[in-house]
Amino acid sequence: MGKEDNNFVKEITNIEEDFAKWYTDIVIKAELADYTDAKGLIAIRPYGYEIWENIQKYMDAKFKEVGVKNTYFPVLIPETLLQKEKDHIEGFAPEVAWVTNAGGEDLEEKMCIRPTSETIISTCYAKWLKSWRDLPYVYNQWCNVLRWEKETRPFLRSREFLWQEGHTIHETEQEAQERTLKMLDIYAEIIENVLAIPVLKGRKTPKEQFAGAEATYTVETLMHDGRALQAGTSHYFGQNFSKTFNIKFQNRNGQEEYAYQTSWGASTRLIGAIIMAHGDDRGLKLPPKIAPIQVVVVPVAMHKDGVIPKAQELYENLSKNYRVELDIRDNVTPGYKFNYWEMKGVPVRIEIGPRDIENNQAVIVRRDTAEKIVVNLEEINTKIQEILEQIQTNMYNICLKTRQEKTTIANNIDEFVKNINENQGYIKTMWCGSEECENKIKELTGAHSRCIPFEQEKISDKCVCCGKPATTMVVWGRQY
Amino acid sequence: MGKEDNNFVKEITNIEEDFAKWYTDIVIKAELADYTDAKGLIAIRPYGYEIWENIQKYMDAKFKEVGVKNTYFPVLIPETLLQKEKDHIEGFAPEVAWVTNAGGEDLEEKMCIRPTSETIISTCYAKWLKSWRDLPYVYNQWCNVLRWEKETRPFLRSREFLWQEGHTIHETEQEAQERTLKMLDIYAEIIENVLAIPVLKGRKTPKEQFAGAEATYTVETLMHDGRALQAGTSHYFGQNFSKTFNIKFQNRNGQEEYAYQTSWGASTRLIGAIIMAHGDDRGLKLPPKIAPIQVVVVPVAMHKDGVIPKAQELYENLSKNYRVELDIRDNVTPGYKFNYWEMKGVPVRIEIGPRDIENNQAVIVRRDTAEKIVVNLEEINTKIQEILEQIQTNMYNICLKTRQEKTTIANNIDEFVKNINENQGYIKTMWCGSEECENKIKELTGAHSRCIPFEQEKISDKCVCCGKPATTMVVWGRQY
Repeated sequence: MGKEDNNFVKEITNIEEDFAKWYTDIVIKAELADYTDAKGLIAIRPYGYEIWENIQKYMDAKFKEVGVKNTYFPVLIPETLLQKEKDHIEGFAPEVAWVTNAGGEDLEEKMCIRPTSETIISTCYAKWLKSWRDLPYVYNQWCNVLRWEKETRPFLRSREFLWQEGHTIHETEQEAQERTLKMLDIYAEIIENVLAIPVLKGRKTPKEQFAGAEATYTVETLMHDGRALQAGTSHYFGQNFSKTFNIKFQNRNGQEEYAYQTSWGASTRLIGAIIMAHGDDRGLKLPPKIAPIQVVVVPVAMHKDGVIPKAQELYENLSKNYRVELDIRDNVTPGYKFNYWEMKGVPVRIEIGPRDIENNQAVIVRRDTAEKIVVNLEEINTKIQEILEQIQTNMYNICLKTRQEKTTIANNIDEFVKNINENQGYIKTMWCGSEECENKIKELTGAHSRCIPFEQEKISDKCVCCGKPATTMVVWGRQY
Repeated sequence: MGKEDNNFVKEITNIEEDFAKWYTDIVIKAELADYTDAKGLIAIRPYGYEIWENIQKYMDAKFKEVGVKNTYFPVLIPETLLQKEKDHIEGFAPEVAWVTNAGGEDLEEKMCIRPTSETIISTCYAKWLKSWRDLPYVYNQWCNVLRWEKETRPFLRSREFLWQEGHTIHETEQEAQERTLKMLDIYAEIIENVLAIPVLKGRKTPKEQFAGAEATYTVETLMHDGRALQAGTSHYFGQNFSKTFNIKFQNRNGQEEYAYQTSWGASTRLIGAIIMAHGDDRGLKLPPKIAPIQVVVVPVAMHKDGVIPKAQELYENLSKNYRVELDIRDNVTPGYKFNYWEMKGVPVRIEIGPRDIENNQAVIVRRDTAEKIVVNLEEINTKIQEILEQIQTNMYNICLKTRQEKTTIANNIDEFVKNINENQGYIKTMWCGSEECENKIKELTGAHSRCIPFEQEKISDKCVCCGKPATTMVVWGRQY
């Protein structure tokens, strides 16, 4: 490697030294996103956006399989609407942005940019819904939302982010509850199988639940540094919003009844999760299923006769089956290119030089293990498939192992503090159910309850905080 | 037909009596969109949104074929940025919406919701661009924009609309100009081949050009009532914005140079165009390529043994190849269903009853011609393909014929006035090139210049308005 190559890697902060700075370095240098002149709002660059498009493709297809239809509702919500549901406005009012003047005139009523769309969508549902025959509405929208965070971080806490928000109404409580959990399962499946990140599924404690919901369910993920990231949530509203917004229908008995409602969302935070769950000191590490470039072909000794044409041929051959890039830049060394594409997280690199061509072979280098595999050119197309699958699985397994290593049990608050300081991660404890204990734990440890996992274990019979009888297991963690 | 059926059709205003009201009726009754509590902003309902998704699918695929990469830039633009380019701010300032308060505090600098994104994107490009090696940037975003129109109409002039806006920068003037026209060609191709609406391609007169552009190119379409609708535009900026926003690069000679820029956009207005170009007294008429439902199966005499199972079988068989709906509602008559699906613009209806089943056949009814075709069930799958293609072509041809009938030539202003009042549509004339004549024509006829068509004809050698020598042919029309 030349001098240039070393400098290049040095530009990224060491992951163990300063994870937060490492994260920002990756976002900027891998050209996923950038800061803009609109403070706290980011630009998502093509390489970052293509990850989002790939996530969308999987998610939207899954949604449609389970009857979801896409829609689009207004970006602006009149103040009186936002204020209709008491808990909802309390939760969102502090972080909304207000439009007060438009078309050269001050507005009679100010309007906020949607922080989420329950209110405006509920008024439409109330207008449209007549009979049980119209139900269910299983609608979703892919859109931007704004939440005026004080401290922002690209993808994780950006004032504007992209997401999907599903909003459904149903004839019965049971159907709505099933929908809530069905959508949670879809998030879990995609995050595990596509993003290669294991999830913890459960219900949020009342304190952590969505403003206005009866129950919030979550898929939680754990990052490289042991902090948790809520990767998707699904809410059951019961008739709470439908009573406030008058969403009613004539039921099968000819009586008026309020609809049962859900909402569920996942956002570009998922890109942050991918970065922080998989990345390493070399940079980004992308799961093959969502990597914008799955394979990069880097010719070696490009000036030698026949190298570029052969690399080109290989590129075209592979392009039929994979997302491939050919790097024939003539102003940087191969060593620079290796580092560059590793930093960009491309799962597979193929090196091909004069000697490889002589032997009708190429060298495959795995991003996840750095393993080098010499492959005959006749077999390379099927071999790549195999390797991409192995990488996808291996990345999941590495994450799972990390999570196991960073999951500990605490029986009392001293153990809790010790565990989270020595091995930041998930802390499993029993909990008495009181918000007081939840608050105290947050104060002493900085950890929030992640969820009450669906898979409960009996650790003890006492609350980790107050020592009173407890039958519920909660998982805690510091969070993004 | 029962009483119910007649009432149903009466709900739609006669298309020749009041085209504007007919339009709104269709939008609401076909459940394409609806008004909301956010005045002037609409909700796009699933049936309308799916048309948009289908347009997006075609357009995005075409874009990617020609190297376009998707991105996402902030929805908010700081005031100072919007004001940087003089013409641009003059064009857009009157219709922007301002955020003045966010996160509980008044903003130091107010920000507008993007009416278009040249300014914010240009600042990012200026930051990112270093060398000719980085060029071109051929980026696009699918997003919402806001323009505070005084009078709004769903899809046509909604304060918020969805669109794509492409923004490119290039090393040379020639490359940028080629890109401008290449994107215009893609719009033309999709509007003609997918939306089945013929387009008129040309350059806008300086008066009608985009605020800040050196040249604006357009694809113009003509509606059923003879009014024109601008369906997509592509702008060449030269170095105008790049000088204002300092987008420069080191060129191949090692010198600093300003980049050459383009932008191009098409929006949910296209849904309005589809409605108004194709619709008739029975309602919406959707081109098969973008129809959310291409085929509806309506069983007749549903209560008879075996009818529903056979209809179900047919539905499942066809669903492998087409977007199909099966209508087995038991609370409305078949006649109601026929009207209903015609109103919704479904290209093909299949009726199947006991006698059809006996004869192993079904009846296909075309939405465009009302023609009934008896088809053997063994052949129906291939027959549908044929018919959908015929409908797509026929719908285009009908539009083309309408356009021919509504295109007239005017040699002087009296002819112009007479033509547009007697046969509202495109008026072809010679034009001297002065804005004065353009303004006078608008005043006298209500028509704007649509464009200077690429395909010029020599009608005469005198300007239609002032009679002075003229070598340019312009097409005029009243507009949406």
